[in-house]
Amino acid sequence: MSQVVLKSITETVVRFSEVDSMAVVWHGNYIKFLEDGREDFGKKFGIGYLDVYHNELMTPIVKISMEYKKPLFYGDTALIETTYIDTDSAKIQFEYKIFRKSDNELIATGESTQVFLNLNRELELTTPPFMEEWKRKMGLLKD
Amino acid sequence: MSQVVLKSITETVVRFSEVDSMAVVWHGNYIKFLEDGREDFGKKFGIGYLDVYHNELMTPIVKISMEYKKPLFYGDTALIETTYIDTDSAKIQFEYKIFRKSDNELIATGESTQVFLNLNRELELTTPPFMEEWKRKMGLLKD
Amino acid sequence: MSQVVLKSITETVVRFSEVDSMAVVWHGNYIKFLEDGREDFGKKFGIGYLDVYHNELMTPIVKISMEYKKPLFYGDTALIETTYIDTDSAKIQFEYKIFRKSDNELIATGESTQVFLNLNRELELTTPPFMEEWKRKMGLLKD
Amino acid sequence: MSQVVLKSITETVVRFSEVDSMAVVWHGNYIKFLEDGREDFGKKFGIGYLDVYHNELMTPIVKISMEYKKPLFYGDTALIETTYIDTDSAKIQFEYKIFRKSDNELIATGESTQVFLNLNRELELTTPPFMEEWKRKMGLLKD
Repeated sequence: MSQVVLKSITETVVRFSEVDSMAVVWHGNYIKFLEDGREDFGKKFGIGYLDVYHNELMTPIVKISMEYKKPLFYGDTALIETTYIDTDSAKIQFEYKIFRKSDNELIATGESTQVFLNLNRELELTTPPFMEEWKRKMGLLKD
Repeated sequence: MSQVVLKSITETVVRFSEVDSMAVVWHGNYIKFLEDGREDFGKKFGIGYLDVYHNELMTPIVKISMEYKKPLFYGDTALIETTYIDTDSAKIQFEYKIFRKSDNELIATGESTQVFLNLNRELELTTPPFMEEWKRKMGLLKD
Repeated sequence: MSQVVLKSITETVVRFSEVDSMAVVWHGNYIKFLEDGREDFGKKFGIGYLDVYHNELMTPIVKISMEYKKPLFYGDTALIETTYIDTDSAKIQFEYKIFRKSDNELIATGESTQVFLNLNRELELTTPPFMEEWKRKMGLLKD
Repeated sequence: MSQVVLKSITETVVRFSEVDSMAVVWHGNYIKFLEDGREDFGKKFGIGYLDVYHNELMTPIVKISMEYKKPLFYGDTALIETTYIDTDSAKIQFEYKIFRKSDNELIATGESTQVFLNLNRELELTTPPFMEEWKRKMGLLKD
């Protein structure tokens, strides 16, 4: 049985304004890195914010978590590895690994969960048709 | 001849995340302080973002400038003094002075200019009626 | 057996710049709210960032998580409830509840874990003496 | 008489978190774009933040201004053109032009001024030797 793994790699350079007074990237800024990863994933696989929006849906984050293992410093380049985690429920889940590019050190890991809201901000309880179609196209759904 | 001066004072505590690796507030964060000042002014004098929006207008910033005289440190409380600068043209202008509360030191000064756009993002070339009315109410316009 | 609960409440007004194009507070900005809560807690109970720093230690975040239940809108005032979660290990843990002030709606919950590093960025494996002393003073440790 | 023009071009993609509730890049985020430009310039011409720091100096911003002409939208790619403006005084000055990549539209212009502080935060009244040397190397100073 084959397994489809959908993954993107995003490169980002640490900005001066992202570093705090301990001279490392402020932990809250990693949330932007996850978003960078998610957006790149969306562009690569055709499931970006605007694709979703054109289906009259929004996909707000309902859960996010991060573990910080090593610091990133000013001038470091980070690689954000974003992996789609398939689920039967009406959600979008991603796992993230952030590496320092120069030494391939694992800096942080994260997870996010999104749900589908219609434009009245009502929760969609089943996976929307365009998402089912996308999954089929990606080989995540059979028949 | 009397002169009307419309001014608000806003207090804000420097956040850890606002301080950079030189241990002072990162210069870009002062733009948020100006916005804090402007919003407080809007609430105090009934000319806030939502008042404007309910008149089907937006007031984007078209010009901003800052001069930085002294640093703000983590834990400092800043006072933002926001003064309305009246103009005949279809614009909103403010001047700002930022002080450290503890020693009343002048930290920075700034200026901002906003214009009026309708909801199609078209520039309003004359001062909108609700703004004229506000000026009259504030004693800035005679008629 | 009595139980000590250490808790602080922090009020914050949603800034225009914190709201995203879906007209709600961008999820990453909640990390700043947790920090606001943590800093207020630190001031209230004498265990702030500077207290720690004066003991030649840093307490970086190693783990953070958030669950988002309802959106916050521009103009909303949020209340951040920060509760200290005692632990025997050399860590600082907090739980957070964020409410909308106007209707007391629970908006989000969160958790954070910090460790102790010395100024060489080396991990302290046991709870530092000043922290033990603080716990004793707070009635969290018997001896 | 020939004139040396030192200029860098930096590309940046608009992040979702940089867009405000009017669906355009929040004006304060352009300050980060200027910093991106300045850092790229520093890397390209060997006058970056770390080069300065290794000379035991800091170069805080003392003046910044922006003019906003057109909005940037989510998904837009911006080009930041950063031009060094030579001056005899002990300052670093830059001019910036920000373009939308897709249609080459001029979005915003800006200027910044930095001074030299030593590590005691005292102002250097004359251009530091390493900066004189850099200017000579760049052909901005004759012997």
